[in-house]
Amino acid sequence: MAKVAMLGAGFIGDFYTYSLHGLRSRDQVHVIYSRDESRGKAFAKKHGIPKWTTSMKEAVNDPQVELVVIGLPNNLHLEAVLLAAAARKPVLCTKPLGRNATEAFKMLEAVEKAGIMNGYLEDLVYTPKTLKAIEAVRAGTLGQVTWVRSRETHPGPHSDWFWTKEISGGGVLLDMGCHCIEIGRSYIGKDIRPVEVISVADTLVKPIDAEDNALGWVRFENGAIGQFEVSWIFRGGMDLRDEVMGTEGTLWINNFLRTGFEMFTAGGKKGYVAEKAETEKGWIFPVGDEVAELGYYNMFADMFRSFEKKSAPVETFYDGYVVNEIMDACYRSAKSKKWEPVKLKEWRGKEKADPISEVREYDKDHIFVKEERMPDGRIKIILKNKKTGKISQLEKKK
Amino acid sequence: MAKVAMLGAGFIGDFYTYSLHGLRSRDQVHVIYSRDESRGKAFAKKHGIPKWTTSMKEAVNDPQVELVVIGLPNNLHLEAVLLAAAARKPVLCTKPLGRNATEAFKMLEAVEKAGIMNGYLEDLVYTPKTLKAIEAVRAGTLGQVTWVRSRETHPGPHSDWFWTKEISGGGVLLDMGCHCIEIGRSYIGKDIRPVEVISVADTLVKPIDAEDNALGWVRFENGAIGQFEVSWIFRGGMDLRDEVMGTEGTLWINNFLRTGFEMFTAGGKKGYVAEKAETEKGWIFPVGDEVAELGYYNMFADMFRSFEKKSAPVETFYDGYVVNEIMDACYRSAKSKKWEPVKLKEWRGKEKADPISEVREYDKDHIFVKEERMPDGRIKIILKNKKTGKISQLEKKK
Amino acid sequence: MAKVAMLGAGFIGDFYTYSLHGLRSRDQVHVIYSRDESRGKAFAKKHGIPKWTTSMKEAVNDPQVELVVIGLPNNLHLEAVLLAAAARKPVLCTKPLGRNATEAFKMLEAVEKAGIMNGYLEDLVYTPKTLKAIEAVRAGTLGQVTWVRSRETHPGPHSDWFWTKEISGGGVLLDMGCHCIEIGRSYIGKDIRPVEVISVADTLVKPIDAEDNALGWVRFENGAIGQFEVSWIFRGGMDLRDEVMGTEGTLWINNFLRTGFEMFTAGGKKGYVAEKAETEKGWIFPVGDEVAELGYYNMFADMFRSFEKKSAPVETFYDGYVVNEIMDACYRSAKSKKWEPVKLKEWRGKEKADPISEVREYDKDHIFVKEERMPDGRIKIILKNKKTGKISQLEKKK
Amino acid sequence: MAKVAMLGAGFIGDFYTYSLHGLRSRDQVHVIYSRDESRGKAFAKKHGIPKWTTSMKEAVNDPQVELVVIGLPNNLHLEAVLLAAAARKPVLCTKPLGRNATEAFKMLEAVEKAGIMNGYLEDLVYTPKTLKAIEAVRAGTLGQVTWVRSRETHPGPHSDWFWTKEISGGGVLLDMGCHCIEIGRSYIGKDIRPVEVISVADTLVKPIDAEDNALGWVRFENGAIGQFEVSWIFRGGMDLRDEVMGTEGTLWINNFLRTGFEMFTAGGKKGYVAEKAETEKGWIFPVGDEVAELGYYNMFADMFRSFEKKSAPVETFYDGYVVNEIMDACYRSAKSKKWEPVKLKEWRGKEKADPISEVREYDKDHIFVKEERMPDGRIKIILKNKKTGKISQLEKKK
Repeated sequence: MAKVAMLGAGFIGDFYTYSLHGLRSRDQVHVIYSRDESRGKAFAKKHGIPKWTTSMKEAVNDPQVELVVIGLPNNLHLEAVLLAAAARKPVLCTKPLGRNATEAFKMLEAVEKAGIMNGYLEDLVYTPKTLKAIEAVRAGTLGQVTWVRSRETHPGPHSDWFWTKEISGGGVLLDMGCHCIEIGRSYIGKDIRPVEVISVADTLVKPIDAEDNALGWVRFENGAIGQFEVSWIFRGGMDLRDEVMGTEGTLWINNFLRTGFEMFTAGGKKGYVAEKAETEKGWIFPVGDEVAELGYYNMFADMFRSFEKKSAPVETFYDGYVVNEIMDACYRSAKSKKWEPVKLKEWRGKEKADPISEVREYDKDHIFVKEERMPDGRIKIILKNKKTGKISQLEKKK
Repeated sequence: MAKVAMLGAGFIGDFYTYSLHGLRSRDQVHVIYSRDESRGKAFAKKHGIPKWTTSMKEAVNDPQVELVVIGLPNNLHLEAVLLAAAARKPVLCTKPLGRNATEAFKMLEAVEKAGIMNGYLEDLVYTPKTLKAIEAVRAGTLGQVTWVRSRETHPGPHSDWFWTKEISGGGVLLDMGCHCIEIGRSYIGKDIRPVEVISVADTLVKPIDAEDNALGWVRFENGAIGQFEVSWIFRGGMDLRDEVMGTEGTLWINNFLRTGFEMFTAGGKKGYVAEKAETEKGWIFPVGDEVAELGYYNMFADMFRSFEKKSAPVETFYDGYVVNEIMDACYRSAKSKKWEPVKLKEWRGKEKADPISEVREYDKDHIFVKEERMPDGRIKIILKNKKTGKISQLEKKK
Repeated sequence: MAKVAMLGAGFIGDFYTYSLHGLRSRDQVHVIYSRDESRGKAFAKKHGIPKWTTSMKEAVNDPQVELVVIGLPNNLHLEAVLLAAAARKPVLCTKPLGRNATEAFKMLEAVEKAGIMNGYLEDLVYTPKTLKAIEAVRAGTLGQVTWVRSRETHPGPHSDWFWTKEISGGGVLLDMGCHCIEIGRSYIGKDIRPVEVISVADTLVKPIDAEDNALGWVRFENGAIGQFEVSWIFRGGMDLRDEVMGTEGTLWINNFLRTGFEMFTAGGKKGYVAEKAETEKGWIFPVGDEVAELGYYNMFADMFRSFEKKSAPVETFYDGYVVNEIMDACYRSAKSKKWEPVKLKEWRGKEKADPISEVREYDKDHIFVKEERMPDGRIKIILKNKKTGKISQLEKKK
Repeated sequence: MAKVAMLGAGFIGDFYTYSLHGLRSRDQVHVIYSRDESRGKAFAKKHGIPKWTTSMKEAVNDPQVELVVIGLPNNLHLEAVLLAAAARKPVLCTKPLGRNATEAFKMLEAVEKAGIMNGYLEDLVYTPKTLKAIEAVRAGTLGQVTWVRSRETHPGPHSDWFWTKEISGGGVLLDMGCHCIEIGRSYIGKDIRPVEVISVADTLVKPIDAEDNALGWVRFENGAIGQFEVSWIFRGGMDLRDEVMGTEGTLWINNFLRTGFEMFTAGGKKGYVAEKAETEKGWIFPVGDEVAELGYYNMFADMFRSFEKKSAPVETFYDGYVVNEIMDACYRSAKSKKWEPVKLKEWRGKEKADPISEVREYDKDHIFVKEERMPDGRIKIILKNKKTGKISQLEKKK
């Protein structure tokens, strides 16, 4: 059982607290911090939390609090982390870690200097499907991963601060690109160095300073590419999909909009359907349990087990920092219109990664290219001559 | 926190214990009963359970045990329930409750006489999707429910006892029909009386005495029909689908084979893919977290909350008894080839249910039948004259 | 090239004519019959048809007409067929063939006595997916077919005459059950005798005399079951799905509502989306080319090729007659609440069908029951002792 | 009726001829050209074609031939087009038009100088789904299109010449990128100028000189982006998917791998399943009618109607040329690692396109940003102050 200080009483604090108190959980939020007293009080009442406070420091330093969870707007992450580090209390921080890599690196240094357990709350790496998929990929089910597409799009965030660049630090690239980039790393290998990026970051239709639509490719040292697609102008709900290509297989995950739950209603029940759902009538596509499907249960289970075992969770502040550096490179690329290097102050993965490669010999003179069955039943085999390099084809009846 | 005696160290006991110990659960299995000592010991070691025993009575009567969970073959449910009742300990029993309604009624009487909390472990009513869907249906999203199709089919059970009629009490109708019937009741209304059934129960290809394939319709007092389709000869994995038709809407749930997780592998990782998966190569369709998707987490959360609050869970022994009576009627119908009445010894729902009905007036002379847009843009409206009963049609341009 | 008399200028005549004139077709409607002159004239103009008439006889007997296509309300099929037979012109008739088996048998006798080519326009057996699926089933891809589910449901037909029992001959069972029953026959084998049926036919919510909802099981001589589900009270569009279970495989076809085409629109383009679509906003699911997807192109291609080659098409009046007899038995069953025999005046299929059967020997003492991989990697094999009949299980590590 | 010279007796010539002769077509291939006599003869026999020849010129100049269809390897397109132009016969050429823009422009000039009808056989723009989707987009169903993703990936082509750069002119970018680029143009607007591109073209696993994997973004003058993903190293079949984002809607099309046809087979019928299918066992996903689903019927219908009406088809050589210029820019970008301009020798679309824009006023002081329903039922509205630019939020109960 862990006693938690929850910093932030907004949407994300709410979701986190539901998760922490959900099912038969043994953990408990002990104190809620909100700068607005009435809001903190209401939050405490709603969730059965014993204490509330308008002082972040008081929350962190509460003697019963064992672990600090940060669910605050981006501009307050650094301050909160420094408080936890000062109090030498384990700390879990929501995504993105910093508004930029400079902030993120300060947080990383602070927690590591203090020697405290630290967790980066990147929930989408922990969805039940993603966990099982990553396990399958690591076990070789897909061969070598060559490309990952991670997509998160919806019609825009629910709180004003997201749309205000000074507070959030950026637009949709920062807000949701961080998910997709870490999903890409997780499939390709977190020990493979991200080398360079190219990105598009446009403000297409929203009346804001930051970008409302962004695309990017992150190239890894072994040649694999992590592609992200993020948008605040998508229509139709929240689209959370990942696709992985490997030399031996393929993986498609839909985390939200098409999960085997389809409902048509002519009348339209008035009420909440799902996060970012845009309709209450016609065909709608809820998920079973949002908290579970978005990875919160598994994420906190990993974090709290790590806390208890004094080990590192799957996602640490170092991961958050790497993601911030990649995003900084994306913002540079969107301006320079060129591939920009990812400049990591510190690299903790493999020094050198082997390039993707898969050469299959066919016979002593030929390399295998491919085989296919034609509509008329013939099998065609394409070969390359080792010496001449010439491509030729064979046919065989089956 | 609840301390549990788990009766049964087979497949279902294993799944139950994983669920009870999963995520951040505060509950714990305290003692495992298996008639085979080495198996019980291995089970205890695997799950970190302090005690094991080959005496069912000892397990139930262990002074630290607060709650008994029955995960035994069908022929042992009654004995186990009687032990729990004698010890006046709350008891949760796996499905089906009895091998027939007579056994089930004895169990119901025993727990109610003893005044103990009792839960019927019908997990498929608790899948995250089903819970949300039932909530939507109760809120009127689909209007009045007219028909439910619940389908559970797979290539057959994993333990010998299922295939032995004296132990199991029956074939696939009993083994999986119980799920589908209770799903039907849950959508149509557990307070609406199931009146009569017609059923097919065939032994198509398996070399067994019991049926390996069954179909049935349960007619409820208000005219709604709960249709079940169960099979031990399905090929392709485990198919768990529910469909609900209502006067205002439609609902389709796929709990297992198509949930937004698709994987192709050319090589074939050797290993467990999913319950009843039949392939390790080609396209495969895992679920994220089986324990979660099959409803175990939510089922036990409801059961243990009820235990703590001394309230009734969603699924009680009474529900298990009703389901057994419906299945007994199905077996009679499969023989008589006629609709057979459901003979409930006791009915705790509505005395009288209103028939499904939806009359919409169009104007003072006409009842509305339907409206449709044609390919050329015209709108056609079908009406019925209140006096003459004559059907006519109107057209309007839109 | 074939010159056609089209009888009927309603919805179905329109669809048929689109199909006959579609793509690069060499066939042509030469004359359109409609009892309403202005409607016939407008139809002729719209489709570029040279002649129109209010006399059915004149249309049939037009000297240039080589082939008659009947797209009339059910009560006029017999009259039209008799005219074609009198003129000794090949005739194609829309579904259902008759309002009942008596009418259908008269039509069958008439065309066979006249010695004319006859085709039953059962389009759903000709959808591109169904054609390929039937071919796969016949080639043994699924082993022996044990069960077919065919479902056609939508919110009700578009013309007044469907709702008027004297004209249509019945409700949804007749209107759409005919599709599902013939789909079942096509998968199970049109040479296997349909033996008996049980059916439900209810008027649940529409203010009509005929049934608006029906379910049925058709049992074939070899033990296979063709299940149909038809409804005029479905909400959400037009649901056309077929499922086939075989001893070696499974088949799922969705012909209309989920075919890989998904569109969300916030604004709502005003216009025709798809047959029976119920919404113009939110998520909608069009098909690519309705005429193609519903089987019209392939159906007419088969019919006209048969006409040219003077051979029998896939669907003949005899098939239409068999379907009518099965439906008559369903109506009897809905009343008697018992399995009713299918009383065919004439059977042209196999005299005796072998029962479904699949016995696999495991070793000299045992019959194989099943094999499954468990989550922990063990393989379990279930066996039956040939002599004792006892079921037992083996485990092996893989 | 049109009489056709088919140039090329390979896979594509075969598919084209099936399409031209399919269903009730009135068109006919009159002569087949193959440089290999026995192959041409066999082809003629198989398809019922009266003549075959090993002289391309003879085929084109055959006096009965009205129209020339080119289904040859890429390096022969120019020669064949020049022959058709010299003979002043209408000509249809398979994709890509040239091996590069220089070749394509020569073809364009030749046909326009000769004044002959010309068609670019870009079939994927003509799939039934794509045709309907483009129509919906043009009608405004999705608002303004901001982004199109077009994906075509499979395990590599079936003939040796594709893999030989001198013949093909390039790898997968040229072979399949041409499809995706034209799909992007079709949704965004073929009259909107493609301005610049960035692309990745890697040789990841195949032992060839050309690229086996490519990604690209084409930026159009109004800010919209056409994204393409093409690969010869995809595993699992042929993946043909398009996604369109608009300011008012979303569109998802799956043309091949998930179209509502799912089949599991334990035994494995030996035979052709679908183009590029990789398995014959387990779950497989055929399409109904490949020729139809891949757009061939609709493409040729448009081409032949245009030929008869002496009008321009939807896809002309000019479109083929534009696509070649875009691909040339992609190859430059893959090397330079920068956005490269698309250098059109001639632009026939809009001189100036309006940028994507969608400003909604909320009240006299505020611009609307977005609205969302929260889980607790509150509606949140995000606004921007017109003067200060400050973002704020409102809440209202519904």
